[in-house]
Parts: sequence; C-alpha cells; structure tokens
Amino acid sequence: MSARSFQGELQIPRRHVVVFCDDAFGPQSERWIDLIPDGRHRILPVFDGGFDAAHPACRPRVEAFFDAHSTRFDRASTLVVPGGEMAKNDPQVVESVLASIHAENICRQSFVAIFGGGAVLDAVGFAASIAHRGVKVLRFPTTTLAQDDAGIGVKNGVNHHNEKNWRGVFSVPTAVVNDFSLLATLSARDWRSGFSEAVKVALLKDAGEFERLEQDAEAIARRSEPESQRAIVRSAELHWQHIVEGGDPFEDEIARPLDYGHWSAHRLERLTQGELKHGEAVAIGLGIDAALAVELGRSTPDFQRRVLSVLHKFGFTLDHPQLDDPSELFVGIEQFRAHLGGALVLTLVAEPGVSFDIHDADFASISGAIERHRSMVRTLQV
Amino acid sequence: MSARSFQGELQIPRRHVVVFCDDAFGPQSERWIDLIPDGRHRILPVFDGGFDAAHPACRPRVEAFFDAHSTRFDRASTLVVPGGEMAKNDPQVVESVLASIHAENICRQSFVAIFGGGAVLDAVGFAASIAHRGVKVLRFPTTTLAQDDAGIGVKNGVNHHNEKNWRGVFSVPTAVVNDFSLLATLSARDWRSGFSEAVKVALLKDAGEFERLEQDAEAIARRSEPESQRAIVRSAELHWQHIVEGGDPFEDEIARPLDYGHWSAHRLERLTQGELKHGEAVAIGLGIDAALAVELGRSTPDFQRRVLSVLHKFGFTLDHPQLDDPSELFVGIEQFRAHLGGALVLTLVAEPGVSFDIHDADFASISGAIERHRSMVRTLQV
Repeated sequence: MSARSFQGELQIPRRHVVVFCDDAFGPQSERWIDLIPDGRHRILPVFDGGFDAAHPACRPRVEAFFDAHSTRFDRASTLVVPGGEMAKNDPQVVESVLASIHAENICRQSFVAIFGGGAVLDAVGFAASIAHRGVKVLRFPTTTLAQDDAGIGVKNGVNHHNEKNWRGVFSVPTAVVNDFSLLATLSARDWRSGFSEAVKVALLKDAGEFERLEQDAEAIARRSEPESQRAIVRSAELHWQHIVEGGDPFEDEIARPLDYGHWSAHRLERLTQGELKHGEAVAIGLGIDAALAVELGRSTPDFQRRVLSVLHKFGFTLDHPQLDDPSELFVGIEQFRAHLGGALVLTLVAEPGVSFDIHDADFASISGAIERHRSMVRTLQV
Repeated sequence: MSARSFQGELQIPRRHVVVFCDDAFGPQSERWIDLIPDGRHRILPVFDGGFDAAHPACRPRVEAFFDAHSTRFDRASTLVVPGGEMAKNDPQVVESVLASIHAENICRQSFVAIFGGGAVLDAVGFAASIAHRGVKVLRFPTTTLAQDDAGIGVKNGVNHHNEKNWRGVFSVPTAVVNDFSLLATLSARDWRSGFSEAVKVALLKDAGEFERLEQDAEAIARRSEPESQRAIVRSAELHWQHIVEGGDPFEDEIARPLDYGHWSAHRLERLTQGELKHGEAVAIGLGIDAALAVELGRSTPDFQRRVLSVLHKFGFTLDHPQLDDPSELFVGIEQFRAHLGGALVLTLVAEPGVSFDIHDADFASISGAIERHRSMVRTLQV
C-alpha cells in the first residue's frame, strides 16, 4: 500500500490556578470553591502527619467545613500519611493513598485535597495521578517552600532506586490554594527554608525582586507578615509564570533553568542523608553556583557577596563539613547530566536577572568554586 | 492581604502521529525514524511474549536493525514480557519494565519501543510513563485490534482491585508505527478480533465506511490484503480523528462515545474470565446496544440486522451462554456509571453515523434488548 500517516496536534486544555488567602476555610472559601465544577463531588482529605501534629486544629476544622458544605462535597474519611521525605521514600505511602481512593470510591470527577509540605504534595499527588488515569487534586501547601515553589509545580513523584523523583508524572491540579494561616506553626527552620527558592527565582527572573528581598530579608526572618506574604506571592508568581508562559511546562526540552543551584543541593541532601532540608541545601547550592560564575570569569565577587549576604540575612548556614571533599559533591554534576539525558545544561546567573547556560563543568572549576564559596562565607558577619 | 490569584492556560504541545508501512525495518524505516529527534538515542525494545513466540524472526531482526543504525540508536538489552491480559493483571510486568528502564539507563531523551498487542502496549506504556515522569515511547502494534484502535489511543494502564485500567495515565507516544507485516502470524481469532472496533467506530462516525465494511467483510475475513489494510487504516484514522479533533483527548468530559458497545463487553470479559477476547466481547456488545436502540424506540430492526450481519460476516459468534442471566450483565451498566463518575452517559447508534446519548438504562430495557438481540442472532445464517 502507499505511504499513509496521520499527524496532528492534540489540544489538552489545562488551567493552572494559584489562589492566595488568609483562611481558606472561613469567609474566603469561595475563592477556591468557585473553581470547582458545579455539583456535588466526593472529596478525600489527605493530611501530612507532620503538619497534622503541629497544627492539630486544622484537620477537624477542614472536615467540619466539607460536612457543612454538603451540597458541594461528599466527604470521605481523612487519610493521614507520614510527612517529610519519608512520604517519598516509603512506597507504602503511595499504596495507602491508592487504597483509600479505591475504598472511598474516589472517581475521575472526585477530588483528593492534599494538606502538606512539598514531599507529601509530591507523593500523594503521584498516587492521585495514576488512579483512574488521574483523579482531581486540590493542593493546600503547608510550608513556605511548598507555597512559593514546590506546590506551584506541575510535577509529582516519589523516590526509587535511591534516586529522587524516579517515579512520577506531570499533572496539573485543579487549584493550588495558598492559605497563609497554615504557615503559623512552622518551625524556624521550615519557615526559613522556603526563601532560598524565592532568592533563586528572583536571581533568575527579576532583579527588582532580588533587591526587594535584600531589603526585606531580616523582616521576613522575623516572620513579619506583610513582607513575608509579599515575597511568597511574588516567588509563586515567578514560578507560575515560568510554567505557564515558558512554553515547556512538562519539560520536554533539556534545559531546567529553575534548577539553578540544585545540582549541588540534591547531592548535599543525599550526602547528609536528609540532615539538610531541601531549602537549606539550595541556599548552599546558590552560593556555590554564584562562586562558579565568578570562577568561570562570568560574574564578579560583588555579585557573589550579594547572594551570600541575602541568604545570610535569612539565617541560612552557608558552609557545611560535607564541602571538605569536593569530589563527593562533583558527583552531583554527573548525576544532573544523567538526569537531563546525557547533555549537560547548567543555568548560572551572572547578575540578578541575567542568566546563562554552560554545557560542561570540570572538576577544577567546581573545586575552585567551592573554595571560593567557603572563603567568602568566612567573611560574612556571624 | 488582598485577594490574589494567578490563572493561566498551559501550552502542552503534543503531536499524535500514526504511520503505516509494510515493513518498518526495511526500506520504509525512514517513515518513522524521521520522527525521532536528531542525535543518538538509547532505545529499549520490549516484546510481547505471545508475539515473540508466534513471530520469532522479528526480534533478532529488530535488534540487528537498531545495531546497524548506531548513529541514531544505542540499543539496550531487549525485554520480553508476558502477552495478553496477563500483562495488565500481573504487577510484576510493570515492575520488570521499570527495572529494565533503570538498569539500562533509559532517560527522558531515550525510547522504549514496544512490540505487542493492546494489553502489552497498555502495561509497558504505563511503566514508561511513570519512569522519570515519562520516557519516550514508540508503539509497534502487533494485532489488528492494536493497530486499528488500542494502539491509537493516548491512554495506558493496568488492572488493579480486579478492575480494568484502575491504574494508568494519559500519555502520547512519539509515534505509532502500524507495520502490516507484523500481523502475518496472527491466529484467526486474533485477526478477526480487531474488526469489531472498526465496525464500532464506523457506526459512530462514518456511514459510508460502515457500508464499505458490509461489502468487504468476507474479503477481510479471508485476510485479503487490500481490503484489510484499507479497513485498518480507516478505523485507525477515525479513532485518531476523535482524539485529535474531538477536543477531549484526555477525557476530562464525562461522555465516552468510543465506548459504544463496551459496557456489556467489559462485563462479558470479566464474567467469562477472559474466555472472550476483547474484540469478541465488543461484537456481542455492539449487537446488544443496537438492540437496545430498537428496544427504546430509537432505531429499527433493519438497522439491528445490518449490524449483526456485518459482524456475522467477519465470523464473530454473537450469542453466549452468559447472556442467559441478564441481571449479571446489567451490573455492567452500574460499573460503567461508576467509571464515569456517577452520571451515566451511554452513547447509542440509531443508524450508521447517527448517535445519541441516554442517561439512564433500567433493567427492563436491558433484558428486553438482550432478548431482542438473541432472537435476531438466531435468524442469521449459520
């Protein structure tokens, strides 16, 4: 027979919606309820166990809210899962969510409402995405990191083969509801941890925002509400813009510009076996990548100092004994290369708002950057 | 703080490409190789064990082809998985594919090339879709059903909780390569089984195609190449058009028009524990739904007779002892309703190319339709 083929573009309509409020289960609830299709929907609340323990009033209030709005919601029994990276390391977490989805008759027109930090959003979102080829998800992020970065992404996944996010899919939640009241009980470390990603995305995308963070860092570290909420909203917006307007929401391209500072951060998280939180590791990673740009003659010590200073004002510790052995950290470059599929594309920043890509990074440059980073960290006021 | 929200449409570019050829690993190979991005790509061949046993020359030839084209392909060790519904029932199949993807360093820029029937395409495609948030897939369907329907879909999945496709995702392969030479060793039952879906989609979408199938059914049953290949191409095209042009490729809407005849087919497959192949069950299901349209006063016995006659000419057996108990079959209506999320939308056909939806189906109508179906089946020539 003669040559035949059919080729066409699929139209896959997906809205990405992020809503901010001071109290999602009070008078502002219509901000997110209005995003839900008409009619009554079965809804399965899933809570991060760490958040639930720190914030015990939330779960009964959420359950009572769904019950009180019974014309819109048909509530299933709440599931509580382990919080933190354990949610992504223990395959039983995904299985327990799948079991609840099945037992509670959650279908493709139903919702899973996830209350948690980034790891729980990732693991529970993954389970929801593979049940019935995807049930609907509402995300209620409970950490600064989840509100200003992780919860905005359209990825989910769990760890496997000792590799981060080895299993996962891309999927878009019905809505991300950033409720500031959920942050009230965060520890100082968890509070701080979200803001290294805010610094990262400002460095990549918005010089004015970076200057604003330089001004506001101390107020945010004191948890002053206006400055903190403004910074979270702007970081979320910059991440959201990258996904919605960047043209590559499901990462078909090789480059991962938002992974600035992350090759070393992921490696440090692994090497310290979770002692460093993701945001803490990213703060060090940003410092190393700023130093690398200087080491490569593409940036200045003045820029490097500005990066370290703002992170220092947020309260991040920027050195770590693990940096004693640059060869251990250098493995992270090869892992990042493998993650991208063989061709390295490493985004660095030369000055706020001005980034460039490099396609190779030898050991001499990396060890030089680490030494340069540690030297300048020692000059910061303690 | 004041109300804030960000809302925007994601642009998710996905081309859906179906290529036909007489020999994908001969001179026509450029038809699909040209669809692969430039450069050299790691590729993992995965073979349906049933196909591999029936068609033993294929696998070494494919391996030699990839090795001979080493500027484009870096071949991993071939994996052979169980064929048929076992691929979707045994969770170890997905795990074995994931293990190969990991061991063979298949990344997001690599390919999994799947050679198999619909079940293997579904299960292996599911594994590929959740590794690294989705590695690239080439589908080489090896049955008439996979070439004219299943392989064209953008779904994948495996069975769980004793429910079909309980776990799965939507994902779009890089290309579907329909190589007619792969059909040469199909059994008579497997050959025939693909054509009930061709009848289905013609009834739904194209009256002229239905008339053509009425004319060609005997020739296709004899495996005459021109008529068979034409029918496969047209069925694939109609399924492809529905996905690409229908506006709902990932089934966000409730209606599933392509599931005409399937509520009873899925139930019959379950009740007969796989004794009936999917295409055989669909043939009976089409007959029952044609009778249901008559039973509801929306169609005529003449139409019903045309549907049964063409299926009969293809060689399908249209009665089954399982139809003795209509209440067992009726459960399929409730399961289909639950699958859709609570609101029943059942697409029926009144005459070729003219469909309508019903939103309820009571037991009296269903049992009446089954009786009407069996009565007319008895009048067909044997």
